[in-house]
Amino acid sequence: MDLRVGIIGCGMIGKEHAKRLQYKIQGVTVTAVCDVFEEGAKAASELVGGVRVYTDAAELINDPEVDAVVVTTPGNYHKDSILKAITAGKPVFTEKPLTTTAAECKEIVDAEIASGKHLVQVGFMRRYDRGYNQVKELIETGEFGAPLVLKCTHRAESVADDYTTEMAVTDTAIHEIDVLPWLIGGDEWDEVQCIMPKITKNAHEGLKDPQVMIMKTKGGVVCMLEVNVNCGFGYDINCEVVCEDGVINLPCPSFPTTRRNFEVATAIEKNWILRFIDSYDVELQDWVDNVKAGTTGGSSAWDGYTAAITADALVASQKTGKTEKVITGGMPEFYKK
Amino acid sequence: MDLRVGIIGCGMIGKEHAKRLQYKIQGVTVTAVCDVFEEGAKAASELVGGVRVYTDAAELINDPEVDAVVVTTPGNYHKDSILKAITAGKPVFTEKPLTTTAAECKEIVDAEIASGKHLVQVGFMRRYDRGYNQVKELIETGEFGAPLVLKCTHRAESVADDYTTEMAVTDTAIHEIDVLPWLIGGDEWDEVQCIMPKITKNAHEGLKDPQVMIMKTKGGVVCMLEVNVNCGFGYDINCEVVCEDGVINLPCPSFPTTRRNFEVATAIEKNWILRFIDSYDVELQDWVDNVKAGTTGGSSAWDGYTAAITADALVASQKTGKTEKVITGGMPEFYKK
Amino acid sequence: MDLRVGIIGCGMIGKEHAKRLQYKIQGVTVTAVCDVFEEGAKAASELVGGVRVYTDAAELINDPEVDAVVVTTPGNYHKDSILKAITAGKPVFTEKPLTTTAAECKEIVDAEIASGKHLVQVGFMRRYDRGYNQVKELIETGEFGAPLVLKCTHRAESVADDYTTEMAVTDTAIHEIDVLPWLIGGDEWDEVQCIMPKITKNAHEGLKDPQVMIMKTKGGVVCMLEVNVNCGFGYDINCEVVCEDGVINLPCPSFPTTRRNFEVATAIEKNWILRFIDSYDVELQDWVDNVKAGTTGGSSAWDGYTAAITADALVASQKTGKTEKVITGGMPEFYKK
Amino acid sequence: MDLRVGIIGCGMIGKEHAKRLQYKIQGVTVTAVCDVFEEGAKAASELVGGVRVYTDAAELINDPEVDAVVVTTPGNYHKDSILKAITAGKPVFTEKPLTTTAAECKEIVDAEIASGKHLVQVGFMRRYDRGYNQVKELIETGEFGAPLVLKCTHRAESVADDYTTEMAVTDTAIHEIDVLPWLIGGDEWDEVQCIMPKITKNAHEGLKDPQVMIMKTKGGVVCMLEVNVNCGFGYDINCEVVCEDGVINLPCPSFPTTRRNFEVATAIEKNWILRFIDSYDVELQDWVDNVKAGTTGGSSAWDGYTAAITADALVASQKTGKTEKVITGGMPEFYKK
Repeated sequence: MDLRVGIIGCGMIGKEHAKRLQYKIQGVTVTAVCDVFEEGAKAASELVGGVRVYTDAAELINDPEVDAVVVTTPGNYHKDSILKAITAGKPVFTEKPLTTTAAECKEIVDAEIASGKHLVQVGFMRRYDRGYNQVKELIETGEFGAPLVLKCTHRAESVADDYTTEMAVTDTAIHEIDVLPWLIGGDEWDEVQCIMPKITKNAHEGLKDPQVMIMKTKGGVVCMLEVNVNCGFGYDINCEVVCEDGVINLPCPSFPTTRRNFEVATAIEKNWILRFIDSYDVELQDWVDNVKAGTTGGSSAWDGYTAAITADALVASQKTGKTEKVITGGMPEFYKK
Repeated sequence: MDLRVGIIGCGMIGKEHAKRLQYKIQGVTVTAVCDVFEEGAKAASELVGGVRVYTDAAELINDPEVDAVVVTTPGNYHKDSILKAITAGKPVFTEKPLTTTAAECKEIVDAEIASGKHLVQVGFMRRYDRGYNQVKELIETGEFGAPLVLKCTHRAESVADDYTTEMAVTDTAIHEIDVLPWLIGGDEWDEVQCIMPKITKNAHEGLKDPQVMIMKTKGGVVCMLEVNVNCGFGYDINCEVVCEDGVINLPCPSFPTTRRNFEVATAIEKNWILRFIDSYDVELQDWVDNVKAGTTGGSSAWDGYTAAITADALVASQKTGKTEKVITGGMPEFYKK
Repeated sequence: MDLRVGIIGCGMIGKEHAKRLQYKIQGVTVTAVCDVFEEGAKAASELVGGVRVYTDAAELINDPEVDAVVVTTPGNYHKDSILKAITAGKPVFTEKPLTTTAAECKEIVDAEIASGKHLVQVGFMRRYDRGYNQVKELIETGEFGAPLVLKCTHRAESVADDYTTEMAVTDTAIHEIDVLPWLIGGDEWDEVQCIMPKITKNAHEGLKDPQVMIMKTKGGVVCMLEVNVNCGFGYDINCEVVCEDGVINLPCPSFPTTRRNFEVATAIEKNWILRFIDSYDVELQDWVDNVKAGTTGGSSAWDGYTAAITADALVASQKTGKTEKVITGGMPEFYKK
Repeated sequence: MDLRVGIIGCGMIGKEHAKRLQYKIQGVTVTAVCDVFEEGAKAASELVGGVRVYTDAAELINDPEVDAVVVTTPGNYHKDSILKAITAGKPVFTEKPLTTTAAECKEIVDAEIASGKHLVQVGFMRRYDRGYNQVKELIETGEFGAPLVLKCTHRAESVADDYTTEMAVTDTAIHEIDVLPWLIGGDEWDEVQCIMPKITKNAHEGLKDPQVMIMKTKGGVVCMLEVNVNCGFGYDINCEVVCEDGVINLPCPSFPTTRRNFEVATAIEKNWILRFIDSYDVELQDWVDNVKAGTTGGSSAWDGYTAAITADALVASQKTGKTEKVITGGMPEFYKK
């Protein structure tokens, strides 16, 4: 039996996920869509063959033909839908971030714990990227010894004019904040620092770019992250894991090598959508499979909460320039594996 | 509505395709399986949730709940099933080779033309490999000018003891024979030559390995292919397209780069299954989509026939050492696009 | 006419430089050698064809058949020889460090300024490495825009038991301290910070390794340096220059690529001697040419002094964990170009 | 004591070698230069500090202050100078080719044997290239097993209008003809074949380019060489040695890697001068050292002769399209090591 899914939020990513679930993912059927803008919901409905249309998330959540919910509204509307899904006892996949403040994330964590069931998955898709998983597998062989230092870049060709200095943390570095502790086997961030180099001429007025973020885990692993969103040459994600007995580098996307114009060259991916499009497929398939099996995968509500806490500390350091502590209160028993 | 597919031949590849169609490919349902060994058919049936079991291919083909057929029997049994499917007017996807002799291939081509419908696709999966398609797209931009020379390797770690000198052509080079003319935009092989270097100590008694095959198209493109099936270091497919204004190299599979033991290294794929597993998914999805849309894709019966003719010429050259002509009689109007 | 050179200090590096000057470098003759251990000086003399032997540096410096002096004693003996050479008005090439304390370096700087002549070159050989010069040339084209972030590694297979935590700065990072401001066109270090990750199991008792050093120039360029001297896999120097319009990476030494054991691999250089041996040749040739032409090149006494000041700040940060200021007092007019 | 060298032929390469010998190579002094155009000889003389000028090669050869001779005249004038040097018992380094016909080469071989002394070295500089030597060392470790197949490219950006189809062999492939048997440990060419692909639009009227040359050694090693002298993207020399237990690839010149314009790229060398300039230094230093030590190195007159014979066979195959035998008559005892 197919899992019946309702989608809340019919913007670009909502529509993409709707089509993905309806036409690419196995074992799932989209049965309802919801958007406060009815036209948007109707358009999404058409894309997936004509399904029930709602403008009120609560109604969709309580639809008996909706077994599980995907939340793709803007981040500041996540909380309500997620809490209602928890109340309804229905599994919910929410695009990142879990919510836009740590306090709201904590509400969700508390509600999920109170419900006694693991219902929430946050859409940090990098955990499903083939390359990150290859790196993780190599680390887990033990042949490289323990990770000691991580060196990452998160580069984008350019950003929109409304991209702010804070978003270098909350929209961009947030992916490394989530994926790196997972990558190295479950460590937690302990303290973070944001250092501001000279600003590139390519940044728009008021934006500090690039930024260097130094993050240390409780286990002593130090991460150096370059966020550089006006690099001009593509979407360029790198991750080097320096271990005791060797170094592992995340592979770049696979493109033909060419010889032309006095250069041997390989393409860099143009944007994040192309870079991680395969990961979205794997991620949603995994979510569907987990929901049907009653298991969990990906990033939990707790992961979403700690990401928010860590981001807050980095944003604080953007202003103070100092090292800031990441204080989560410790992982509840409920989330330990 | 799902396409209903019956599978003829329930060996390893038959079972793999059955599971792939039932659980990974969209828009298709396996409704019947057939094998002359009833136990094999029953086992395959179980794998896909229990479907109708046949021991006679004709019965499966004529089952009204079978819309299209996948043939995964040994190559020497392909012809009968394919001809019956053509007679029944049902689309048929056959694993490569089309059949084991050029004469039989020609029978199928003639039958398909007589039927007036494009029904046959041959399973040369490289046409669905992401890397080959990236190379093809670059060629098609025109920015590199016309292809002039192709330089390919087809290397495998080792082969079974029953692998013969001829199989370097019929089992191994057959993939390059099919994919290269397609890659460069539809050229045809004109003449071929097989050159025997010193034999590797790693080849078993009686096997000539490696082999160098020189193949020229009617358009004058020269291909140099190294077949080397005891290379010992993995499954290593390379293809360099030397064009008038640049050179394009097929990407290798994407793996993390490591630093260890005084070396910077990247893994080479272990075997062909891992190397082309993604291509099988894309290939069968494309076949299903095409069948449902009444269109065609991949390698046609004509492609299967010309591959057989070309292979025959190469096998002849293995013995004569001379350049041998590839004589197909010219592509029938029916197969021109 | 050949430049006549005397060498003070006949240990390993002294003997190497003696042979290099006598047999590889053009336009120079070694005429005298000196070591407090007469046997060492005699051995060095033999290596270069039998030249005058001294045990007192002052006597060698004042030998009328010595035009210029190379100092290759242990660092803590550098000062006296260098000051005497300045007094004698003879050009002096000293292996790095200039001296072992910033105060002594300052004495040399003051003496050189007082002499009114540029006489001192410090042996930071990376400025003569082909790769660094290629990177510098690319930066200087202006096509990449201004440098913003530098990401460097300084990795060695292992270190002797007497290598201390401080030496990660004074012996190892000292090379990046010198070469990076030169690389990006003459900036100066402003503040530095040393961060201690988890210690590798491969470090000997008491040694903190790896270390992460964050260094910022007055121009706002941020350098992240990984010092990792028990990496186990070779001598691995990397330098990535992130500029406004592109990124430039220092090339690794050139070795054949191999396919073996399921890996495509390229060798990593075994040790620093092999890595920079060519640079030593270029460096000493350049020194000889400059001395004969009455010009200067390479690292000046001022560069040696500021390297010492910067190293002191990093060593301080090793203990405080804080950002420490680099206070040099400002470059004297004498050293400005 | 410096070796005193006279240079015959003061064109571009003659002047370059004169400066190289006078100012870069150790243990050698240029004492005389000769050119039938006295102005050219005078200009060369000036470049090296003013040395004796001749217009008659015999006079230079017999100058008592000339210990050894470098021949850099056009190839068709080589024979006379070389024979006179042999008669005078003076070592001679000649730029490639030894002479322009196999018959003339044979005269030189016979004269050298008759003289009883090894006097002639031919300037095939690739034997001194660092990369080829690294590959040779790896082969000689035995870890890769015996070489079986060689795959080479010899690509140039473009050629002058007077470059002919034959010159693809005599000027271009001649380097591979010489270096490859040496590379794999002393094998000899047995038979060769030239295959003509479609001609690039970038070739000038009448020039067949690219060309594919298939060459087989007596030991059964098969070489596939792509000559492509209008590739448009640089001077691109590649050599892949396929061995029984692995594959070795010649390194490309070392350049920084850059990220720009949606590409990760590394430069390709612009032309052969830059590509092999280091090899010339090593080659002439080795020649000087050998002459002084009474030993030999590099390519012998016999190597020059067999290269000419092999080139003749390839040129024959350019016309016949057939496999042509390389018949040298067998290496004389005199040249065996």
